[in-house]
Amino acid sequence: MTKTDNKGITVKKAENFSEWYSQVIQKAKLADIRVGVQGFLVHRPWGFRIMRRVYEYLEEEFEKTEHEPMLFPIAVKEESLMKEEEHAGFSPEVFWVTHAGTRKLEERFALRPTGETQIYPVYSKWFRSYNELPFKAYQSRHTVFRNEMTTRPFLRGREFAFFESHNVFSTHKECLAQIDEDMDILNKVVKDKCKIPFFYFQRPQWDKFKGADNTFTPDTLMPDGKRNQLASTHDLGQNFSKAYDIQITDKKEKQQYAWQTCFGPGIWRIMAAIIGIHGDDNGLILPFDMAPKQIVLIPIFFKEKAEQNKVSKLLNKTKNDLTKKGYRVIIDDSENSPGFKFNHWELFGVPLRIEIGPRELKDNKATIVRRTSRDKTVINIKDLDKSIEKEAKKLDEDITKNAEKYFSDNVRDSNDFKDLKKIMNKNRGFVRVPFCSVDFDGEDCADTLKAETNGGNVCGTLFPKAEKVGPKEKCIICGKKAHHKVYVAKSY
Amino acid sequence: MTKTDNKGITVKKAENFSEWYSQVIQKAKLADIRVGVQGFLVHRPWGFRIMRRVYEYLEEEFEKTEHEPMLFPIAVKEESLMKEEEHAGFSPEVFWVTHAGTRKLEERFALRPTGETQIYPVYSKWFRSYNELPFKAYQSRHTVFRNEMTTRPFLRGREFAFFESHNVFSTHKECLAQIDEDMDILNKVVKDKCKIPFFYFQRPQWDKFKGADNTFTPDTLMPDGKRNQLASTHDLGQNFSKAYDIQITDKKEKQQYAWQTCFGPGIWRIMAAIIGIHGDDNGLILPFDMAPKQIVLIPIFFKEKAEQNKVSKLLNKTKNDLTKKGYRVIIDDSENSPGFKFNHWELFGVPLRIEIGPRELKDNKATIVRRTSRDKTVINIKDLDKSIEKEAKKLDEDITKNAEKYFSDNVRDSNDFKDLKKIMNKNRGFVRVPFCSVDFDGEDCADTLKAETNGGNVCGTLFPKAEKVGPKEKCIICGKKAHHKVYVAKSY
Repeated sequence: MTKTDNKGITVKKAENFSEWYSQVIQKAKLADIRVGVQGFLVHRPWGFRIMRRVYEYLEEEFEKTEHEPMLFPIAVKEESLMKEEEHAGFSPEVFWVTHAGTRKLEERFALRPTGETQIYPVYSKWFRSYNELPFKAYQSRHTVFRNEMTTRPFLRGREFAFFESHNVFSTHKECLAQIDEDMDILNKVVKDKCKIPFFYFQRPQWDKFKGADNTFTPDTLMPDGKRNQLASTHDLGQNFSKAYDIQITDKKEKQQYAWQTCFGPGIWRIMAAIIGIHGDDNGLILPFDMAPKQIVLIPIFFKEKAEQNKVSKLLNKTKNDLTKKGYRVIIDDSENSPGFKFNHWELFGVPLRIEIGPRELKDNKATIVRRTSRDKTVINIKDLDKSIEKEAKKLDEDITKNAEKYFSDNVRDSNDFKDLKKIMNKNRGFVRVPFCSVDFDGEDCADTLKAETNGGNVCGTLFPKAEKVGPKEKCIICGKKAHHKVYVAKSY
Repeated sequence: MTKTDNKGITVKKAENFSEWYSQVIQKAKLADIRVGVQGFLVHRPWGFRIMRRVYEYLEEEFEKTEHEPMLFPIAVKEESLMKEEEHAGFSPEVFWVTHAGTRKLEERFALRPTGETQIYPVYSKWFRSYNELPFKAYQSRHTVFRNEMTTRPFLRGREFAFFESHNVFSTHKECLAQIDEDMDILNKVVKDKCKIPFFYFQRPQWDKFKGADNTFTPDTLMPDGKRNQLASTHDLGQNFSKAYDIQITDKKEKQQYAWQTCFGPGIWRIMAAIIGIHGDDNGLILPFDMAPKQIVLIPIFFKEKAEQNKVSKLLNKTKNDLTKKGYRVIIDDSENSPGFKFNHWELFGVPLRIEIGPRELKDNKATIVRRTSRDKTVINIKDLDKSIEKEAKKLDEDITKNAEKYFSDNVRDSNDFKDLKKIMNKNRGFVRVPFCSVDFDGEDCADTLKAETNGGNVCGTLFPKAEKVGPKEKCIICGKKAHHKVYVAKSY
């Protein structure tokens, strides 16, 4: 361990979230954006390990639900990309490779902005018969590229971490079951593992993925009250299979277009939520299972060499014992002061700290501190295992409770436009309002809402069970009969 | 399971390796090169799972040896790339991104041809003091880009699967220890797990990575007698730290340039070796632990419905039992004939096949067949576990033995140029010859050798223990005193 000059976060999260977020990313060594091409980010080891954990959780669920892994190239043919233009409209943001060395390429190619345009032309070669379906497949740990004008680590980048599944079915019914399965995966990974609460919305028709029949998204709230869309899953119907000619012979030996879904958990967006929602004024806070190091052992300063050695020996033994049990443990025996070390490892979000000094050693005691409450508990060293288990569990409960409290505290109801405007300016968060229509005929009201709330979006209705709207409720914008309860929020 | 019209391999591996290799890749659904931009490959699920296994093995070893994972962007600044031009000289092959949408970028950027040019400018910001070192870090599961003129799946591509570590040390001694560690990792992964034999060479000075002090490579032989370089590890000395200004304060508070190594196991090259070396006329052969499916259960055709159900039930139970034990199992209950199924799963390299029919069922027997020998062994169903363990072990032994036999059968000695030329034209393989010098002054002889053997390369001397050369031996080319035993081979 090395003596460092890392300084803590200098702003309060509640007072200046934007600056707090930037400082945590830099000071907890999650990412580096100082060097290289603008808008492209270096994932540093501490941040990369957290992100990799998200990938591992997802991969585990995708394997359990019998998706096959695959990997498509980065290069997309102009012809394939343009076929999708009407659907996805990524082309204004697409990067073009035009040269190799000093030579101009005969055929320029695009860097994939997402998978559809390159995967579906290949799918059109892979399947011929209904009995080759369902085909469920995913790509993981790759990146995609869009020329975003403004970039922000883990929220928006010119290159960002991606995960996507592209499934092909014989019937539309299977698409609908897949949407449920995707939701289930998000519950398991994002809610249970990452401890991020969210609403699962069905997007209004005017805000769905172009080319999809329906789009579903889990949206959470960041500490500045803005919505963070964590993923999206799309019922593509037969739209893409028609555009890319994915046909199969059905049971009656008739040719038909396949039915498709695609699903993209936003790896970066989930990272941003973990950083932003769980962290506090001292830095990062991480669920126990997600932390690159779960326990830091810190010797307390003392003068006598013999005692130093005793403490050192005990720390090493403790580290070995805990490592064997599967914990990820680090000893900080650098020359820094204990106080410095406490701050340092809190900044990095290490869940548990165990302090051992000569006084504790004499009594066979140790002090254990969990990152969330930062309360010191003196324990018997022989009870260390049990204490770790208990504190880890409490830490995860603290994290979940805090996240859920912030989330539920920031869901408000309104049926008055003036009131809504006030909330959107002051508190932000989600506001549940009566709304005329989530079909295309509601778009005008949504536009008005957006314009007059300085960017508030209609996120959609809750899925799978949309909330009921009273028989006499009126659309908050046009005053006509309300058919839906929709949620409004400002977005990243 | 579906009835397919997959046809087997139509050529003999020994007679037309090149065509055999292409057919295996296509027919065992390892990769698809039919659609998309030329020179870019789709990793299909079956192939991707095998490749991912190689990644997992490597990651496990890199974690054990305390390397940190990280991820750098795809984009490299022109300025950084050009700084390295003198060292690596990739620039003629580099792809350039010049446009986004219809707009020309203010600053074009390159797609990374390898990591050095983008990682080292960042390293120059990360380290200030010797006590921040050693820093050992790796990138995994990413791809790199070079505009190769001729491409071949898993051997040469415009985009190919990459793995690289970039380590920074305070002393040169640590670099040398790292070279040993890298070699150890290759032994564990490539030899022990993937069952690929290789020589570990120190490359001649004229053939090292530009900018490195020394380059070390494990080279194997493909079935056509050509050398396949599986990885390379480089002692970079202080050359790159000087070019990219990676300076640290040493113990005496003096500024000094850091010492570096980098290591790139060739994921694709290892895949090509697994496919090419282990496979036979019937298709793929895979080490037991690497196979996406390890065991295929095949019901033998029979007419009575009651018996069918009994067999089905037993197969399902067997699958569940084996899956619980951690095996990857598939039942092929498609409408195809047993013979078709045997061929199909042999083509895909599934290590063990278990056949159960009504006759066997009555006697509580099953037939087990391992992919290598294809001998049928009748076993008691109650001994299934033990039989699987035994057959899996035998399979791995068969694979290792076959690979090692081919390898050692194709290492020859020569001390006569005419003789060498004959071998290089007829047998290829490795030829061990006396050679004047592996320093730059030997390059002329190497050029002559290459020209007159139609492409034979001096691969280098064995590392870590170079073989002794007799006091009277003469260089096979110039006839001057030989100082080394070097190995000659034609290359991919």
